[in-house]
Amino acid sequence: MLKIGIVGGTGYTGVELLRILAQHPEARIEAITSRKEAGIGVADFFPSLRGRLSLKFCDPAEAGLEKCDIVFFATPNGIAMQQARSLLDAGVRVIDLAADFRIKDVGIWEKWYRMSHACPDLVAEAIYGLPEINRDKIRNARLIANPGCYPTAVQLGFLPVVEAGIVDPDHLIADAKSGVSGAGRNPETHTLFAEAADNFKAYGVPGHRHLPEIRQGLSSAAGRPVGLTFVPHLTPMIRGIHATLYVRLTEDADLQALYEKRYAGEPFVDVLPAGAHPETRSVRGSNLCRIAVHRPQGGDTAVILSVTDNLVKGAAGQAVQNMNIMFGLPETLAIDHVPLLP
Amino acid sequence: MLKIGIVGGTGYTGVELLRILAQHPEARIEAITSRKEAGIGVADFFPSLRGRLSLKFCDPAEAGLEKCDIVFFATPNGIAMQQARSLLDAGVRVIDLAADFRIKDVGIWEKWYRMSHACPDLVAEAIYGLPEINRDKIRNARLIANPGCYPTAVQLGFLPVVEAGIVDPDHLIADAKSGVSGAGRNPETHTLFAEAADNFKAYGVPGHRHLPEIRQGLSSAAGRPVGLTFVPHLTPMIRGIHATLYVRLTEDADLQALYEKRYAGEPFVDVLPAGAHPETRSVRGSNLCRIAVHRPQGGDTAVILSVTDNLVKGAAGQAVQNMNIMFGLPETLAIDHVPLLP
Amino acid sequence: MLKIGIVGGTGYTGVELLRILAQHPEARIEAITSRKEAGIGVADFFPSLRGRLSLKFCDPAEAGLEKCDIVFFATPNGIAMQQARSLLDAGVRVIDLAADFRIKDVGIWEKWYRMSHACPDLVAEAIYGLPEINRDKIRNARLIANPGCYPTAVQLGFLPVVEAGIVDPDHLIADAKSGVSGAGRNPETHTLFAEAADNFKAYGVPGHRHLPEIRQGLSSAAGRPVGLTFVPHLTPMIRGIHATLYVRLTEDADLQALYEKRYAGEPFVDVLPAGAHPETRSVRGSNLCRIAVHRPQGGDTAVILSVTDNLVKGAAGQAVQNMNIMFGLPETLAIDHVPLLP
Amino acid sequence: MLKIGIVGGTGYTGVELLRILAQHPEARIEAITSRKEAGIGVADFFPSLRGRLSLKFCDPAEAGLEKCDIVFFATPNGIAMQQARSLLDAGVRVIDLAADFRIKDVGIWEKWYRMSHACPDLVAEAIYGLPEINRDKIRNARLIANPGCYPTAVQLGFLPVVEAGIVDPDHLIADAKSGVSGAGRNPETHTLFAEAADNFKAYGVPGHRHLPEIRQGLSSAAGRPVGLTFVPHLTPMIRGIHATLYVRLTEDADLQALYEKRYAGEPFVDVLPAGAHPETRSVRGSNLCRIAVHRPQGGDTAVILSVTDNLVKGAAGQAVQNMNIMFGLPETLAIDHVPLLP
Repeated sequence: MLKIGIVGGTGYTGVELLRILAQHPEARIEAITSRKEAGIGVADFFPSLRGRLSLKFCDPAEAGLEKCDIVFFATPNGIAMQQARSLLDAGVRVIDLAADFRIKDVGIWEKWYRMSHACPDLVAEAIYGLPEINRDKIRNARLIANPGCYPTAVQLGFLPVVEAGIVDPDHLIADAKSGVSGAGRNPETHTLFAEAADNFKAYGVPGHRHLPEIRQGLSSAAGRPVGLTFVPHLTPMIRGIHATLYVRLTEDADLQALYEKRYAGEPFVDVLPAGAHPETRSVRGSNLCRIAVHRPQGGDTAVILSVTDNLVKGAAGQAVQNMNIMFGLPETLAIDHVPLLP
Repeated sequence: MLKIGIVGGTGYTGVELLRILAQHPEARIEAITSRKEAGIGVADFFPSLRGRLSLKFCDPAEAGLEKCDIVFFATPNGIAMQQARSLLDAGVRVIDLAADFRIKDVGIWEKWYRMSHACPDLVAEAIYGLPEINRDKIRNARLIANPGCYPTAVQLGFLPVVEAGIVDPDHLIADAKSGVSGAGRNPETHTLFAEAADNFKAYGVPGHRHLPEIRQGLSSAAGRPVGLTFVPHLTPMIRGIHATLYVRLTEDADLQALYEKRYAGEPFVDVLPAGAHPETRSVRGSNLCRIAVHRPQGGDTAVILSVTDNLVKGAAGQAVQNMNIMFGLPETLAIDHVPLLP
Repeated sequence: MLKIGIVGGTGYTGVELLRILAQHPEARIEAITSRKEAGIGVADFFPSLRGRLSLKFCDPAEAGLEKCDIVFFATPNGIAMQQARSLLDAGVRVIDLAADFRIKDVGIWEKWYRMSHACPDLVAEAIYGLPEINRDKIRNARLIANPGCYPTAVQLGFLPVVEAGIVDPDHLIADAKSGVSGAGRNPETHTLFAEAADNFKAYGVPGHRHLPEIRQGLSSAAGRPVGLTFVPHLTPMIRGIHATLYVRLTEDADLQALYEKRYAGEPFVDVLPAGAHPETRSVRGSNLCRIAVHRPQGGDTAVILSVTDNLVKGAAGQAVQNMNIMFGLPETLAIDHVPLLP
Repeated sequence: MLKIGIVGGTGYTGVELLRILAQHPEARIEAITSRKEAGIGVADFFPSLRGRLSLKFCDPAEAGLEKCDIVFFATPNGIAMQQARSLLDAGVRVIDLAADFRIKDVGIWEKWYRMSHACPDLVAEAIYGLPEINRDKIRNARLIANPGCYPTAVQLGFLPVVEAGIVDPDHLIADAKSGVSGAGRNPETHTLFAEAADNFKAYGVPGHRHLPEIRQGLSSAAGRPVGLTFVPHLTPMIRGIHATLYVRLTEDADLQALYEKRYAGEPFVDVLPAGAHPETRSVRGSNLCRIAVHRPQGGDTAVILSVTDNLVKGAAGQAVQNMNIMFGLPETLAIDHVPLLP
């Protein structure tokens, strides 16, 4: 039975982690910290957990996290980098669901996240937790940088063609749409119901923090720097990411076969039949990424459609997938829910 | 391993039954019938089931339902009553998720459902599948009339005060609000997104088919006929029922204690602390009914709030709960999902 | 051309007032104040107004409100009562869209709003701006207390039967459902999209501030104190209120005729044909209140359904209706938009 | 006073046309036809119109359309081409809101719409009703092909750069998102609330009927055939189109100045300041198209964001704009509503 600690946990990533871990047969949550909610029952805070978790939020100082086998950081950016070292030194393995360890080039990270990094050496050590690329490294990692929600859907969509080197790598386009939970549980005007409902908009077109993360991953896959235009949009739905990807083919290829081969054996990537259009609800509440590949009108532009649940494969589910891999558990344990449709 | 048959199954009750049974460790779906979709893979029809069910819809004639241990009817009203007898005669137990066996007075049923009943004797035999009332009878039943979605939420909310005889039984009021999935998957104008979104309306105020069903249950609990005003409303959400119940107290009582005592030990009824307001999302995807009791401004009118997921406790989940009871399985088996929030 | 001032105006009531007044042929907005947004163009703040209003938010000190013909307060509770007197003294007429002047009994107001009242004498003078009751008094009023959103829909629904004295006045029940814009534009967790979407809940069952306001209006109509149970609910839609009202009839009456007669000639109250169910979208963006009356199953409980747009007839539209009356303009001027459906 | 006829009118384009024309000071609707609803009051069918239109749907045979000044076809594809000639011969001007006259190459039309065309000569005569391109021709046209919803938003977004010849014309990409009302009022499974809510998907990636229409318009603007990848998506909102357009710049240019100059004087095209992100709700219920231009990270890919209300500028509003132009009325008459936000 793994002893689990969670730092933060009052946001959507946190409650999703709790939902999954509450049903995990090999995990027991020992402590969940929140300065602000210390003393409050987790199930009083999140009524969906009533009867399933008797835990209370506790003050970080009293959490005893160093006695856990693994600690998840479901915190804002900049927290995990302050606390990871002491946990690692105590032999605790760490998964950061925020961005602190995602970007290998610390200068780039500091520019996009507008902070000084507290521990560049740990950035170097951290493994980027996308199992479809790094499964073997994850197994023995002490510190996992869990990928962002957009980067997961976008990279899984691009990887086969970028790895195969059959597209113009300087002009990748990712038009991505996210449900509003991706913006977090902190109250802000633009994510109010009366602002975001019955509405659609792009945001961050000049530059979004997930751009360097995606570019890093795809450049690594391509073996050279790639050029990427990334446009995120806010969609009036709670969960889900839909990435529509456009690539210019530089040589002919059987795209369908390429995708099916690349993801054969992957438990959480589902390549749809030719001609299909994945829907975000077909993965709601699940750790799946469903992908379809198109070549409209037989032209040289291919269109790849990739959908995930931003809170599961895009956050908490992928974190538990990484945990399962790290501890030699069946990779799908406790994250094999059938999606909730309708 | 129970051998399961499903008649119908292309609607929302059907896909929810499939979602639950696909994860049930003691059940195997042997056949699912649909005349219209015969030959189509269930997972091609409902993409959420890709990778989880390899079954195809089959023609009823070729389904071999009489070899099943139990058959669920997830059909329109009027189908189960045609087919139940031959299955029962073959030793198969039957759960009807439609209304065919819910109303004991066949004359009333025929008036509200505008059909002649095909087998009044089976109506007499059928057990109304609300475990919180009929658990013992369900255990040995051959034929279960699975309750309607509104009747489940409304009856569970009213039962403690009606059984206790502390309210005016002639003037019960149930103001109920349902998500749109309650109207089914058949395309109709009024349930189109562009009609039902950003909109709220009452319907069926002069009379709704669930009125006699609720009245029957509450009359039985009261030991005398009750008077009920039932007003259903359509709410722009996918799943969920919220029943707001109004009763006139005829004597003083500790309502909170009454409810907690009535439902102590019930695995799927959660009485919230005094002063609480249950949300439909706190039961989304789960078999739970959460209830709160109020007595506003200390008056003689009590307000009871009761929420369920109409497709789970209001349909497929309750059906599986009944199945678990009928076959001596743990009652919560495969229907103990933590609700999906947000 | 009326010279208009607006105090506050960065909330939903404010933008709705701006939408209406920007199209009003006899009104010119001279100043709109906001300490926080002073210097920002109104159309930069609310992009829907681009090209229609060149005004900027200004500091209250520089607004010159005393030179206006009328000033609207679209502010939080407790502001208008601080500033109304000096405007009135300068000969400016005032409409408060908040609650400062709605409750005649200052003690009750102070209890529910948890503030000391700054000017009880003005409360005594203020006219409650529900034209369907007070049209004549509104004409000559200096100070209007514009009704709340729930109180408008609920009172218009109850008035005919309460005035006629044909219902039990001690046991009125109002089950009301509101769109999320009714909670305002201030960022709070419970009105985030990811909290309020696909969800339904009651709130404030023990007591909501609109309870004493409604009770005051109905008591006045009844000529004696009434007993009211008022349960508000949050519905996942942007605009709209749906009030479902329950009354016990104490004598027989032709309710349909009663309602049609009571509201004959009212430009903004539409009594639907017998058997109808009004939808909130049928009044979206308009100043209308649509009402239907039912007597289900011929019992002694009548059900009245009343819908409004909470931001129009429930706030800004009614305020402009009051202004039109006060200045002898056609009552429907600039508030006669056809509802936006779908 | 223009005498107006409407053929069809039970769909969303129809009710929007009625909303606008009911408030048009120079138009009187003489007849609206519907075989199916003949005899039903328009305001009984669309409750938003109660009190504003006393008209009934009538049988086409009794409509007397030939006595109108102008007839709108708000019908499915393939109807207007059957009936337009006799109206034109009678001196009636015609605006078809469907696709019958949009594509000049009849062979292409017949391929995409899977019908034989009834009157190719009228196709040749018809003017494509996008005033921002064809204002002068519209003035004297007898027959207007009113543009599709996607083509309006997409063409207005692309036009300035395509006309200027500063982008690679072979690789235009249009990633477009539509509200569900764009799919019409006919009941179909995929547009049910419980299917389309809380969900996002692409559709028609292999080929959508609006592709040839957009390609025709842009080829004309470019003076040579263009290559276009067009991917439409269904978004869980009622109204609105958001087009995200990607172009490869072939020479440097001040895009902001180019767009502002191109649309200077256009009453319904609003070029936002540099760096802006238009929201669909900022045009809800209005005839506006708002556009913003970006060049992310200073690369050679420009991103243009274009939003419209699909039922107004994308259908009924643009039709009335065309009518106003054809009859020498002020172009903005009756279509200058301030958008409804929130």
